[in-house]
Amino acid sequence: SQEYTIAVLPGDGIGPEVIAEAIKVMRVVETRLGLKLNLNEQPVGGAGYEASGKPLPDDTLKAAKSADAVLLGAVGGPKWEAIDFSLRPERALLGLRSELGLFANLRPAKVFRALTEASSLKPEVVEGLDVLVVRELTGGIYFGEPRGVETLPDGERRGINTLVYTESEIVRIAEVAFDVALKRNKKVCSVDKANVLEATGLWREVVTDLHKKKYSAVELSHMYVDNAAMQLVRNPKQFDVIVTTNMFGDILSDEASMLTGSIGMLPSASLGGKTAMYEPIHGSAPDIAGQDMANPLATILSVGMMFKYSLDREDVNTVLENVVESILDAGYRTKDIMSKGMKEVGCKAMGDLVVQAL
Amino acid sequence: SQEYTIAVLPGDGIGPEVIAEAIKVMRVVETRLGLKLNLNEQPVGGAGYEASGKPLPDDTLKAAKSADAVLLGAVGGPKWEAIDFSLRPERALLGLRSELGLFANLRPAKVFRALTEASSLKPEVVEGLDVLVVRELTGGIYFGEPRGVETLPDGERRGINTLVYTESEIVRIAEVAFDVALKRNKKVCSVDKANVLEATGLWREVVTDLHKKKYSAVELSHMYVDNAAMQLVRNPKQFDVIVTTNMFGDILSDEASMLTGSIGMLPSASLGGKTAMYEPIHGSAPDIAGQDMANPLATILSVGMMFKYSLDREDVNTVLENVVESILDAGYRTKDIMSKGMKEVGCKAMGDLVVQAL
Ligand SMILES: CC(C)[C@H](C(=O)O)[C@@H](O)C(=O)O
Ligand SMILES: CC(C)[C@H](C(=O)O)[C@@H](O)C(=O)O
Repeated sequence: SQEYTIAVLPGDGIGPEVIAEAIKVMRVVETRLGLKLNLNEQPVGGAGYEASGKPLPDDTLKAAKSADAVLLGAVGGPKWEAIDFSLRPERALLGLRSELGLFANLRPAKVFRALTEASSLKPEVVEGLDVLVVRELTGGIYFGEPRGVETLPDGERRGINTLVYTESEIVRIAEVAFDVALKRNKKVCSVDKANVLEATGLWREVVTDLHKKKYSAVELSHMYVDNAAMQLVRNPKQFDVIVTTNMFGDILSDEASMLTGSIGMLPSASLGGKTAMYEPIHGSAPDIAGQDMANPLATILSVGMMFKYSLDREDVNTVLENVVESILDAGYRTKDIMSKGMKEVGCKAMGDLVVQAL
Repeated sequence: SQEYTIAVLPGDGIGPEVIAEAIKVMRVVETRLGLKLNLNEQPVGGAGYEASGKPLPDDTLKAAKSADAVLLGAVGGPKWEAIDFSLRPERALLGLRSELGLFANLRPAKVFRALTEASSLKPEVVEGLDVLVVRELTGGIYFGEPRGVETLPDGERRGINTLVYTESEIVRIAEVAFDVALKRNKKVCSVDKANVLEATGLWREVVTDLHKKKYSAVELSHMYVDNAAMQLVRNPKQFDVIVTTNMFGDILSDEASMLTGSIGMLPSASLGGKTAMYEPIHGSAPDIAGQDMANPLATILSVGMMFKYSLDREDVNTVLENVVESILDAGYRTKDIMSKGMKEVGCKAMGDLVVQAL
């Protein structure tokens, strides 16, 4: 039988709780498909720091690199907010992205039928919304040099970061966006600030050229980032796939996911290297950790993305998506998506519901 | 009687139409207050380019520099999209900001009582919303060097922009935010990406220090930009004043203004130098130009901000705000904010309504 190794990094806060439910689901899928999943659990983020003095311990990185896929819970918490920049939990995320070469972050913002009312936007504006943000993840201002804070001759300090993109970095992320659009509604909107930033002027030029050469079956548009931030609020359903830089993608993907009103439901995938990484887009939510209150569905749907993109079993993703829809349709809700007349369940009970439905 | 010189820059598209209505209003205010307003009209943007080959003609810049205030319509249009980067209409905006030293951009996102339903957000989420975004306007990645596109030894091109902030640039914009918060709800949220970008780590540090030293009467919070983009959608009323960098401010102020559902209503002020500049936040809307369809209220409210911040007559601003509220309450609407049961009027008629109400 086929055998896969999954590096499982629960992390901090509600991370371990949602990962526990995802593991239950993976075990069922494993039996059903007659696979063997070797789950290699390792600490990361604050938990990594506690275990080894580093947010991304060497063994964790090694496990990630040698796995067929990485499943991450969430990192961070108040306990590690005062420690040095270089040791804080989020360094582990940036480290994993760059060490694994995960240049393409896929973040779907999808409104589940049963949760349309959860959005702060009017139901007719978000009903059926299904936008995919493709964010460049290993370049741009996140990683550009020079960076840091210097002291000028007169004693004043000056902070510097550098936005850099090469043509090949732009081509490869645009290819991901066009390829994924071909399997969706065949529309890509490339977001930049080409009227002000030369680096994103190059971005626009390269995306335009690539489109002409290889992807004329896709409808390509360009939008300035400020306008994109507005259009997501005004009429998000105009978008299919949005492709953009690391920094703009960070902002727009979070804005897009909040349009759904239920970020506890949204998975993500980071692709591009040999090993891909999957994680819920929500954070570690330290305030509700350890209380069996977290929503495990985003992590369970991340398992779905893992089967689709890393284990070549798109069918498992489809099944998990349908199971989640049916559980919501049946009225079950964790606290974050609870509304009147629905049945509130805890994290474990929600995991059990998925297991039963499978 | 007191005499003021106002540089009036109508610009492109609907710019001249909305400015014409603002002039009518200024003429009434002038008579009422017994002032003398010398209106020095000059071309800018595409119109500047047509007149002199430059989006910001020398005479226009001279007029702006020697005026007591600048009132701008809007710039840009398809006609000038293909011309060289350095000659495009938006260069005039960036040029005016930097030449006049306008480091503080005040962008209110306010929901008018009568227009609550115009928002794509649920009425209860935006009802009574009144957020002010204070955006740094002459620094950061908009102006940082080095910048441009270079060719690497192997022939590949690479685009570069630089995010730079000195302590004094941060102090002066934070002071504006704290000062204006003292006259509002005394809450400032400073938005950065201090967990990734060192330049904005310095930003957070400097804002925190300044707050401790001089502004303890204001409640200060910090938020990462991705979270701010989410919180604006989730619960915008949690904010009073938001202060942030040039790039983040560009994105968040547009997002915030779209929450109101009526950007045809929103004015802005750019302060910091000897002469301040006022303009509606909407663009030149070439598609509806010349059809007497534009909404002149944002420009008329910009005149109000001009009286408040440059001519020391806050009372005029209050009167104009009240007049606009009452016209909306009476059911008059331009096309952009039209809804069922209301009375649709053109740009000129809307200007006349303001004049009559005065
Ligand atoms: C925690 C932080 C470094 C990270 C980012 O900015 O990329 C997060 O916001 C995300 O989007 O995954
Ligand atoms: C036109 C453009 C250069 C400008 C900016 O990015 O500052 C505009 O978006 C604005 O916000 O005034």
